[in-house]
Amino acid sequence: MYEYSRGVFYYETDRMGVVHHSNFIRWLEEARNSYFNDVNLAYVETESFGVMSPVTDIKMKFKHFAKFGDNFTVHLKMTQYTGVRFRMAYTVVNQNGEELLEAESAHAFIGENLRPVSLARAIPERHELMQRLMETPGPELGMKLGIR
Amino acid sequence: MYEYSRGVFYYETDRMGVVHHSNFIRWLEEARNSYFNDVNLAYVETESFGVMSPVTDIKMKFKHFAKFGDNFTVHLKMTQYTGVRFRMAYTVVNQNGEELLEAESAHAFIGENLRPVSLARAIPERHELMQRLMETPGPELGMKLGIR
Amino acid sequence: MYEYSRGVFYYETDRMGVVHHSNFIRWLEEARNSYFNDVNLAYVETESFGVMSPVTDIKMKFKHFAKFGDNFTVHLKMTQYTGVRFRMAYTVVNQNGEELLEAESAHAFIGENLRPVSLARAIPERHELMQRLMETPGPELGMKLGIR
Amino acid sequence: MYEYSRGVFYYETDRMGVVHHSNFIRWLEEARNSYFNDVNLAYVETESFGVMSPVTDIKMKFKHFAKFGDNFTVHLKMTQYTGVRFRMAYTVVNQNGEELLEAESAHAFIGENLRPVSLARAIPERHELMQRLMETPGPELGMKLGIR
Repeated sequence: MYEYSRGVFYYETDRMGVVHHSNFIRWLEEARNSYFNDVNLAYVETESFGVMSPVTDIKMKFKHFAKFGDNFTVHLKMTQYTGVRFRMAYTVVNQNGEELLEAESAHAFIGENLRPVSLARAIPERHELMQRLMETPGPELGMKLGIR
Repeated sequence: MYEYSRGVFYYETDRMGVVHHSNFIRWLEEARNSYFNDVNLAYVETESFGVMSPVTDIKMKFKHFAKFGDNFTVHLKMTQYTGVRFRMAYTVVNQNGEELLEAESAHAFIGENLRPVSLARAIPERHELMQRLMETPGPELGMKLGIR
Repeated sequence: MYEYSRGVFYYETDRMGVVHHSNFIRWLEEARNSYFNDVNLAYVETESFGVMSPVTDIKMKFKHFAKFGDNFTVHLKMTQYTGVRFRMAYTVVNQNGEELLEAESAHAFIGENLRPVSLARAIPERHELMQRLMETPGPELGMKLGIR
Repeated sequence: MYEYSRGVFYYETDRMGVVHHSNFIRWLEEARNSYFNDVNLAYVETESFGVMSPVTDIKMKFKHFAKFGDNFTVHLKMTQYTGVRFRMAYTVVNQNGEELLEAESAHAFIGENLRPVSLARAIPERHELMQRLMETPGPELGMKLGIR
């Protein structure tokens, strides 16, 4: 599983004294971006080809509150890739190992006109990398891909 | 169905040129707060009794992009109330009637120590109002409850 | 003075129990957009000509906290317009007339390459409207411009 | 000068394709929190004594746009400390050394009733640390204070 960590920001809390639930959806995006950066599939580059990958579905199950002063870690993996869509699964834990969130997201590829595109056709070499990511979903990821 | 509307804010857009998906979860909260205000169950009052109702689960299915310049309307209703939990269902549409989002949320009641409480025991008269809301989930809501 | 009002959103509060200060800068933007909509200079249209007007300077003086349950009103006016820049002044008050914020912002016009442009040259009819706004900065604004 | 860095998050961009200006005020807060953590004056601890330090004034001068894919560094220092107030100055630069922002903020200490308090009276040992910070505003900070 890929891991992404940081501390909670003050402005992410609400008057309940805990992190507002809307921020978790942003943490998942941060982790996703960090993951794709680390496997040489940075969003900023994919988007330079005119291909974007918006969220089409999201499910979140909140287990524990996060607080200011906490650190969180998002564990994520890609669970499906079809050439036109992909799915990710996540768990978010705090510094004490308490599970804060379980989540899943689905994504489509779209072009600059906001219409669906096939990654296979739009950017073949990125399609191949995505396929290899599905075959090697372990911690050995980087080595197998010869990345970093 | 209860309705809540407003225009898209500039700061809610992202570099794709559309509303960032994380804002939809905030729109649902705005709509929920507006609904509970209008049925005399304002969050600000429930919280003055030390009872809060955080989101425990959320599912969102994104159908269409929202853009700056658009108006959106959240249609929502309560679909379950058990005394310790409730569920809401939502659809969000734009000014052209295009469906932007379908969503569901689940909520628990908790006290100031962030532990679950029964609304029935904590604020009996609010528990009764919640029960009546479940019995009268139509547009006739306000009239039946003698509200506004 | 132009006025823009709404209630505080739950997600705008922080763990101090008050509105996080970063939201005020967003409220000013909401008010500015509403103002320019109402004087037929909607951002969404100006941007359709490829002209944007980012903030170049902002000053904010926080006077009172805003809370969930509060309503706020932004009073704003344009204080300068040069053809390539404009300035706005704001006061934000709550439902009790308590002043929450005093603020000023400065803005430049830029093109799609993010470089400065002259509104006078880029969209002459919008330049004229801006000039007339500076001449008629009162509540009689709408009437003079024949708007609404 | 103390430094705080991270990459730009996708959700911080707006439809202009650049970071929305409201996020800079949040970056300053992140940097401030990181600074106070590193000098043993963590907000989360100060707040555990019932003392908070909200922003009372802020000035920001935007120089360059920040984009998705960029890294930013906030350079900050405390410029004044009176026992009841403090001031900070900031510059934010990107990975190419381009200056994105110049800013100043002022802060007051308040208690749980949201009324001003003197840090000197409320938490004397934190008052002393603040005084020493003003005397040693250089990179040698940590060493002088025997921190980390």
